[in-house]
Amino acid sequence: MYLTQSLHRALQQNPGRIATINGARRYTVAESVERISRLAAALRALGVRAGDRVACLGLNSDRYHEYLFAVPWIGAVLNPVNIRWSPAEIVYSLADSDSRVLLVDDTFANAIPALRAGFDRLETVIFTGDGEAPAGALRYEDLIAGHEPVADTRTGRDSLLGIFYTGGTTGNPKGVMLSHNNLITSGLGSLATGHVASQGGRMLHAAPMFHLADIAMWTIGNLVGSTHVFIPMFTPAATLAAIAEHQITDALLVPTMIQMLVDDPAAAEVDLSSVKHFLYGASPISESLLERARKVFPAAKFTQAYGMTELSPVTTLLSPTDHDDPTLRRSAGRAVPHAEVRIVDADDNELPRGSVGEVVAFGDHVMLGYWNKPEATAEAVHDGWMHTGDGGYMDDRGYVFIVDRLKDMIITGGENVYSAEVENALAKHPAVAACAVIGVPDAQWGERVHAVVVLKEGQQASEDELREHCRALIANYKVPRSAEFVAALPMSGAGKILKRELRKPYWEGAGSGVS
Amino acid sequence: MYLTQSLHRALQQNPGRIATINGARRYTVAESVERISRLAAALRALGVRAGDRVACLGLNSDRYHEYLFAVPWIGAVLNPVNIRWSPAEIVYSLADSDSRVLLVDDTFANAIPALRAGFDRLETVIFTGDGEAPAGALRYEDLIAGHEPVADTRTGRDSLLGIFYTGGTTGNPKGVMLSHNNLITSGLGSLATGHVASQGGRMLHAAPMFHLADIAMWTIGNLVGSTHVFIPMFTPAATLAAIAEHQITDALLVPTMIQMLVDDPAAAEVDLSSVKHFLYGASPISESLLERARKVFPAAKFTQAYGMTELSPVTTLLSPTDHDDPTLRRSAGRAVPHAEVRIVDADDNELPRGSVGEVVAFGDHVMLGYWNKPEATAEAVHDGWMHTGDGGYMDDRGYVFIVDRLKDMIITGGENVYSAEVENALAKHPAVAACAVIGVPDAQWGERVHAVVVLKEGQQASEDELREHCRALIANYKVPRSAEFVAALPMSGAGKILKRELRKPYWEGAGSGVS
Repeated sequence: MYLTQSLHRALQQNPGRIATINGARRYTVAESVERISRLAAALRALGVRAGDRVACLGLNSDRYHEYLFAVPWIGAVLNPVNIRWSPAEIVYSLADSDSRVLLVDDTFANAIPALRAGFDRLETVIFTGDGEAPAGALRYEDLIAGHEPVADTRTGRDSLLGIFYTGGTTGNPKGVMLSHNNLITSGLGSLATGHVASQGGRMLHAAPMFHLADIAMWTIGNLVGSTHVFIPMFTPAATLAAIAEHQITDALLVPTMIQMLVDDPAAAEVDLSSVKHFLYGASPISESLLERARKVFPAAKFTQAYGMTELSPVTTLLSPTDHDDPTLRRSAGRAVPHAEVRIVDADDNELPRGSVGEVVAFGDHVMLGYWNKPEATAEAVHDGWMHTGDGGYMDDRGYVFIVDRLKDMIITGGENVYSAEVENALAKHPAVAACAVIGVPDAQWGERVHAVVVLKEGQQASEDELREHCRALIANYKVPRSAEFVAALPMSGAGKILKRELRKPYWEGAGSGVS
Repeated sequence: MYLTQSLHRALQQNPGRIATINGARRYTVAESVERISRLAAALRALGVRAGDRVACLGLNSDRYHEYLFAVPWIGAVLNPVNIRWSPAEIVYSLADSDSRVLLVDDTFANAIPALRAGFDRLETVIFTGDGEAPAGALRYEDLIAGHEPVADTRTGRDSLLGIFYTGGTTGNPKGVMLSHNNLITSGLGSLATGHVASQGGRMLHAAPMFHLADIAMWTIGNLVGSTHVFIPMFTPAATLAAIAEHQITDALLVPTMIQMLVDDPAAAEVDLSSVKHFLYGASPISESLLERARKVFPAAKFTQAYGMTELSPVTTLLSPTDHDDPTLRRSAGRAVPHAEVRIVDADDNELPRGSVGEVVAFGDHVMLGYWNKPEATAEAVHDGWMHTGDGGYMDDRGYVFIVDRLKDMIITGGENVYSAEVENALAKHPAVAACAVIGVPDAQWGERVHAVVVLKEGQQASEDELREHCRALIANYKVPRSAEFVAALPMSGAGKILKRELRKPYWEGAGSGVS
């Protein structure tokens, strides 16, 4: 299978259908495929060869859609950049993946000088905004207008489709290598459950498109012939307006976004009855939120997906009917048709039902590996089984319940934050003697990043000062939202920080599965 | 992906669900998987190694289901034998594939001596019937009782799953090599359309299980957790009774079978409202039959699948709603999400819409090749595109219409008969000077095999005598049902028999797409 195959099918079956809607701009399938093949020609003319990495830094748009198709069209490799990263993090990913061509939109154009300065092998910057291109950047629309279409190389199967960066437990992000078959297997297997998208529907992209969750949903949309509707980024107002205007049938969101939609007074004033499928991930949905969401979106079926970038990402689904069972509502669901899931101990032995261990998964959706990190790959994947780092148990019917994150990760507003990254940044402050970063419950974000800090004897640093310090090093969403100062951190006999002790006062009675 | 993966998922999620129903015999998922793993152990103890071929000759049953799983469980290769073949044809396929282990049921036990005589490398015969085993054969249930379960080898992906014999244009059957990913891709892609089967439904196997069409449907059932119900073979009475008794939700049939069901007086007397999905293939359905069938099965959605063994087999689908459009009812439908389809000329150039050419298909469902026939493989598959041998055109919306069979094939009651095979048999009769075999319209079978014969000067042979002669050489369903004697066959300038001329008087006004 190959990613661009769906374009040929759409072109054959429905060339006049609207493929993309971006504000006032609409392209039919025929127009969109022509633009993609011209962009592919331009990239090739710029020297991009099969296997070369091409990065993209931008908000959601039809041009992001075209990028996602044009790069594999010539057998090159995607590198969708996390828009919330600091310039230092972006530079790291460009250099690590050696992405010498970068697409940048208006919103991020001001980062170009810093990126050029940090990564001197950056050869080509393509400006995907509408106005004048910044100095030294090529205009996206000029490239499309200036090149004749080239034929699709039909690169696919087990070859590298993209490098998708994810937070690292040891500080730096890791590049997850996914193949065409990885992503399409995840898409077909999810569709085979019948829960995730409508045939030929209208799919809204409000969640950020650089994230694999939305790229996976987009892949599903391509397989069933969706019209894709893009809004630059999630805001409750823009999302509600787009749903009503375009009669959206399918969307991927995180519970934090669903909550904001439901809480918005405008929700009562527009027609939201077109939505048939909401796929959500990152955390379970609370009973009260589900109840309210079902009232606001009367025709929508809610399905939870659990997985991770390394699993392309869908691994378990909690079906719409599963949501009616109160004992299952905090579950992440069961293995999808393309996946196997187990709970294992530290020696990879499967544990009895009900026992907490590490969640591992097997199937054609398991990543090819981490880019240039064979040791990390070997540590994560044993005999084809991806070790998620999540602690969980399984009930007698195969439902997985996530109870802890072995990898010490915080999920805030749908974004993964590895504590180690934040701790590394904090530790660089001259006043910090020791620190531990944990996730604590947050009404808006599910969890928020919280720092527990031990200051050096005789030194001072305020919460604001530490935040300012971190902001220069890591993405804003990773910066601690709150902090406490303590005399010492609780330690195990082996000298390991007992984070469970730190979390305890925050999570008692919070009712979440994460403890 | 690997075929037995669905067993592990079923065992994890629903071990107490009924997996198979065969008359009064029922096995839960846990029982069925245990039997499969014991049978796998027995096969291994009998010397079957990874890659070895294991044949099965029998009517539909739960034991056929167990065979289909136990063989890949140890990494061996399936060879499901066409039950309609003559002993000579069966011997050919056993020898060609070197299948040294053969499972045989009661119905075909009397063929064992002839098969042993014809294929002296046949080492082990396993009797899957219930009574005493024939001399020299092992009892299936003794093998299961006598071996402890072995672990699944989890063989899969592009490795060889089975050799599926199909009629050959040049006389002998060809072994189509399909991988695990071939068959599972076809299953997931078909499911992604939402039309082919219910989640966790009850699937009836009335069409013969040796045939890839039913094996593909069975694969789909495994992916969605169906309970499989087996009847030994299709009869209208047994099929109607099974549907009513087991509240069947999904089944694969050919239009000839649907017609027999609809025509049966018993259809009016039983509850057939449970059927949700009928997948049918081999030929389009007539408008009058569809109308009657919809009345008899009020809740059923009818979907046509087009493909061939070499395409695992699903390549296009005509959806239930497509059936409501009279202009589409004779179409084979459009490319499924895992496939691409084109109409090409003799030089593989794509033809404009509406022009008749050869139907070709591309995707991960394209066979690995023909067993031991690299030339035939190279002839059939160009750059990954399988050449179906079917003539057809495509409309502006990508719907494929089959208008001719370039490979000179007849489809009678869902079985493919290659004219060359029948002509070879006829030509061996001492009185036959020349002959041509064509398909002519038949109210019951869709088409029937018809022979046009030129006798040698001064020689005589009756229609019955020629049939008797053929019956010793080829399967009964290939034997001409009718014949005509002519003085000479119409020839082209190049000396090619003009079959179109022969077919013309039979097909004029028949209203079929096949001309």
